[in-house]
Amino acid sequence: MGRYVSQPFSAHSYKDNLMFQLFVDDEIKLLLIHEGFVPRYVELVEKNYEYLSKWLAWPPFCKTPDDFKQFVKSSLHKYADGESMTCAIEYHGKIVGNCSFNTINHDLKKVEVGYWLGEEYQGNGIITRVCRFLQNYAFTELKMQKVEISVAENNTPSRAVCERLSMKLEGIITNSEKVRDTILSHAVYGIHVTET
Amino acid sequence: MGRYVSQPFSAHSYKDNLMFQLFVDDEIKLLLIHEGFVPRYVELVEKNYEYLSKWLAWPPFCKTPDDFKQFVKSSLHKYADGESMTCAIEYHGKIVGNCSFNTINHDLKKVEVGYWLGEEYQGNGIITRVCRFLQNYAFTELKMQKVEISVAENNTPSRAVCERLSMKLEGIITNSEKVRDTILSHAVYGIHVTET
Amino acid sequence: MGRYVSQPFSAHSYKDNLMFQLFVDDEIKLLLIHEGFVPRYVELVEKNYEYLSKWLAWPPFCKTPDDFKQFVKSSLHKYADGESMTCAIEYHGKIVGNCSFNTINHDLKKVEVGYWLGEEYQGNGIITRVCRFLQNYAFTELKMQKVEISVAENNTPSRAVCERLSMKLEGIITNSEKVRDTILSHAVYGIHVTET
Amino acid sequence: MGRYVSQPFSAHSYKDNLMFQLFVDDEIKLLLIHEGFVPRYVELVEKNYEYLSKWLAWPPFCKTPDDFKQFVKSSLHKYADGESMTCAIEYHGKIVGNCSFNTINHDLKKVEVGYWLGEEYQGNGIITRVCRFLQNYAFTELKMQKVEISVAENNTPSRAVCERLSMKLEGIITNSEKVRDTILSHAVYGIHVTET
Amino acid sequence: MGRYVSQPFSAHSYKDNLMFQLFVDDEIKLLLIHEGFVPRYVELVEKNYEYLSKWLAWPPFCKTPDDFKQFVKSSLHKYADGESMTCAIEYHGKIVGNCSFNTINHDLKKVEVGYWLGEEYQGNGIITRVCRFLQNYAFTELKMQKVEISVAENNTPSRAVCERLSMKLEGIITNSEKVRDTILSHAVYGIHVTET
Amino acid sequence: MGRYVSQPFSAHSYKDNLMFQLFVDDEIKLLLIHEGFVPRYVELVEKNYEYLSKWLAWPPFCKTPDDFKQFVKSSLHKYADGESMTCAIEYHGKIVGNCSFNTINHDLKKVEVGYWLGEEYQGNGIITRVCRFLQNYAFTELKMQKVEISVAENNTPSRAVCERLSMKLEGIITNSEKVRDTILSHAVYGIHVTET
Repeated sequence: MGRYVSQPFSAHSYKDNLMFQLFVDDEIKLLLIHEGFVPRYVELVEKNYEYLSKWLAWPPFCKTPDDFKQFVKSSLHKYADGESMTCAIEYHGKIVGNCSFNTINHDLKKVEVGYWLGEEYQGNGIITRVCRFLQNYAFTELKMQKVEISVAENNTPSRAVCERLSMKLEGIITNSEKVRDTILSHAVYGIHVTET
Repeated sequence: MGRYVSQPFSAHSYKDNLMFQLFVDDEIKLLLIHEGFVPRYVELVEKNYEYLSKWLAWPPFCKTPDDFKQFVKSSLHKYADGESMTCAIEYHGKIVGNCSFNTINHDLKKVEVGYWLGEEYQGNGIITRVCRFLQNYAFTELKMQKVEISVAENNTPSRAVCERLSMKLEGIITNSEKVRDTILSHAVYGIHVTET
Repeated sequence: MGRYVSQPFSAHSYKDNLMFQLFVDDEIKLLLIHEGFVPRYVELVEKNYEYLSKWLAWPPFCKTPDDFKQFVKSSLHKYADGESMTCAIEYHGKIVGNCSFNTINHDLKKVEVGYWLGEEYQGNGIITRVCRFLQNYAFTELKMQKVEISVAENNTPSRAVCERLSMKLEGIITNSEKVRDTILSHAVYGIHVTET
Repeated sequence: MGRYVSQPFSAHSYKDNLMFQLFVDDEIKLLLIHEGFVPRYVELVEKNYEYLSKWLAWPPFCKTPDDFKQFVKSSLHKYADGESMTCAIEYHGKIVGNCSFNTINHDLKKVEVGYWLGEEYQGNGIITRVCRFLQNYAFTELKMQKVEISVAENNTPSRAVCERLSMKLEGIITNSEKVRDTILSHAVYGIHVTET
Repeated sequence: MGRYVSQPFSAHSYKDNLMFQLFVDDEIKLLLIHEGFVPRYVELVEKNYEYLSKWLAWPPFCKTPDDFKQFVKSSLHKYADGESMTCAIEYHGKIVGNCSFNTINHDLKKVEVGYWLGEEYQGNGIITRVCRFLQNYAFTELKMQKVEISVAENNTPSRAVCERLSMKLEGIITNSEKVRDTILSHAVYGIHVTET
Repeated sequence: MGRYVSQPFSAHSYKDNLMFQLFVDDEIKLLLIHEGFVPRYVELVEKNYEYLSKWLAWPPFCKTPDDFKQFVKSSLHKYADGESMTCAIEYHGKIVGNCSFNTINHDLKKVEVGYWLGEEYQGNGIITRVCRFLQNYAFTELKMQKVEISVAENNTPSRAVCERLSMKLEGIITNSEKVRDTILSHAVYGIHVTET
């Protein structure tokens, strides 16, 4: 083996991640979803399975490395088509969760945001900061007019995030998502570029 | 319009690009190819048409914004499939060219590198630094054993790049590429992780 | 030519339509969408173009016989896949409009209903009766739990239909549909089988 | 649960079937094939397995609910493409068999008819009435010139149906169908609109 | 240019055709259809347009080199799938027509044969010899039980070929093919391996 | 059974193969790959498994009749598309190996040749004669300018074939093929029409 392995490429520690990245702030980066993250995702979801399964539909269907590889691949294909954008959330150099524009709708000038975070990383304002960054990205980079977040009606912590972000509750739409055997209602929150 | 447009999001100027990025050094970043770059690509290629057409096959077939959008989309789909990776080269905050792993072959543990640069940006060592970075990326991040670059036999400047990178000439393979109406021979250069 | 053309097949006038049909009541039938209806659709939409374009997105994109043939074909393919169901509305033996389950979602036990009617047939309670029939169809035949209707926020007549059907307003969701150059908000109405 | 389940929707008993239907006469209706019929088809074919397998190729390959769901789906897709039309035969409110235009050929102005019936419903003239209705449908609704029925050379009852319908024997074509391990000859019958 | 062009490769004149070939007899070879034949096909069909259009449906739709290239390609794909086999007929070293197994049905152990010949080559027994060869090929190489030829009812010369080949008339099937604006009846001829 | 089986069709013994064929010389024919050859291929590869696996990548993945049927089918589809051409080598009436244009590149006017031969048939000059024939075919029939053969760097017998054919070594390209668990270098040989 040669110098590439024994010597780090760059002395700039803040830049030493060989992954496509966006800077949220000095603590948080968003890394475009990548097959290299799969082992970390599997580990995170294993550890947080009960916690994540409470409000998310996918954990029972996405557990193994192959499931996540498939998820990475299909997410990147949708990114290629300009339909969505999925990133790992890196906090102090460690992948701690995931965030995304689930849809990017240029006709309606609207994105829908989704996210999840390992339980132990809660309470650091990570999701709030990430969502604020994504709002900025949507309004300035993607020229959107509205950011929408739909959360399960009873998911109080997620509704608190939306409220901290000054998003407005537009309605409670019944029969909107199936999690395990329960059909949930969605609280739909929105914020418009004109309100920022 | 609200605060997002009138106020820059971040005070850290080196991070203020809302594009997925890799840091080559303080002057150069690689940005994952994106539809937002199309106008700049069209402008660059228009200005350098004669220069680029000398050694590259695609300029006559990729000129309009729609051509480049198609190129961006298909490049990102191949990135999604782990088959290639295409980046804009940003130099002092400006897109000046393009580089790529044209193929990423996990079976053969080999990547093929390609690039082009606007004529006026020649002479700053940009391509040499970019290729060195891509070698590092291939050997450490992608766990490859070999980086290969094929250049037209008579393309002296590109052959000089390969030599500056300590790559070894493995052969001159005839009938390897058609540029305009000429069928060119390729000088094939290689470097192995064991040689670095 | 033989007897089939000169003699009507059946003396039962209420049954003499050689189209797959559902009976709403003595005045109204729903006919599964069929290529044979295309000329009538073209005529109806031509006559009501301004009226229909006010709240519907498709009229500018669906005008010619070929457009409607394509619409019929894709509607029937979605019916074949159990994803939607589109019918012509026949009133006193004449096609006067269209109604549909735009989506049939077995996971969420929810259908979304859509419709349009020629302007001159307004005021006969046709849409209210059709929607009540479709509610019945959804709850008994398709075993759904919820019927949802989304109408443009300012479409007062359509909102009146929803209210006559005892549907509940669940929210006003902004940036939900583009009609001509305007991005509309949707008033989302719902009714559950338990409320009937 | 509400009124939809406890109260039948309509008092008109002859219309109370929530299925797309065509009226053959007061005893017989044709219902466009539908996933809801699958349990009845499975039951019918189970009961008549030996009887149906004698002349039909499909029973060994179409037995389970999933097989029939697939059959329903592909039949409806071909209906959507205008290539065929498959219906359940309802006799006195009960599904007793199946009939179809196996092909609808607008170039040749010809349809091919196929059918099967549970053994216990034989002897009521059901198939003869259904085929006469389908002839009428083909000539008037589909503007066809010829109806063709191919039956196994030795299937005497089916050949009797063709003769009762005044169809003409056009030939005995060898090697036309494989049923179990036997390759059968087809007696091909035809009737033209000019002969009706 | 080197010796390959100035020197014929082989002195054996009977073998000097660089095309995949089957030997019918000393005068006739069958060459697997190939893009290289397109100019000859175009010329043949141009010269015999009226003659061939009388009984064949395709001449109005297959005239240009591109039409024939498409025909060659799709014929070879069907050959690859074992569904058909299409050959040029070479007579005294010159392509004079075309013959094929239009279908190869392993379930029914039956092939359907088709052919056409330039008018000026009629009267040499070419088609009869080719069909006899194809019968042999079908029975011995493909293990078929039946060869079937369908010809337009009024195509006396083609019916004479079938009779010379001792094939039996199995029926006259109406509405079997559309040639120009006329819907033709087919005389269906068959011969079984047991009859040879 | 009739005369076709008991009597050979033709008295010309050199022509009695009912397969599409090209004549290399009096001992060797090339037969367009065909499903009928599968049993012989299976037998040949079984017998020569160790021998062939030394330099070829496919033997571990292509062993069963189904594997070879798939190979035949995909080879013929690529032949249909004009992208490659694969033939069995027949020597004194017996299939002894395989040869092919692995690629036919009309833009670059180049074909790549590949082959394999049962071990016991080595030493008769078969491959040399086949390759010379394929060179001729490429230069005269396909109008190519270059024939290229890539062989594993250490495959001395194959390199000797290239040299006997007066082909020129253009380079040794590392990381070019994976055989079992070894990544091989290719010796790339070429000959141009101007050199013949």
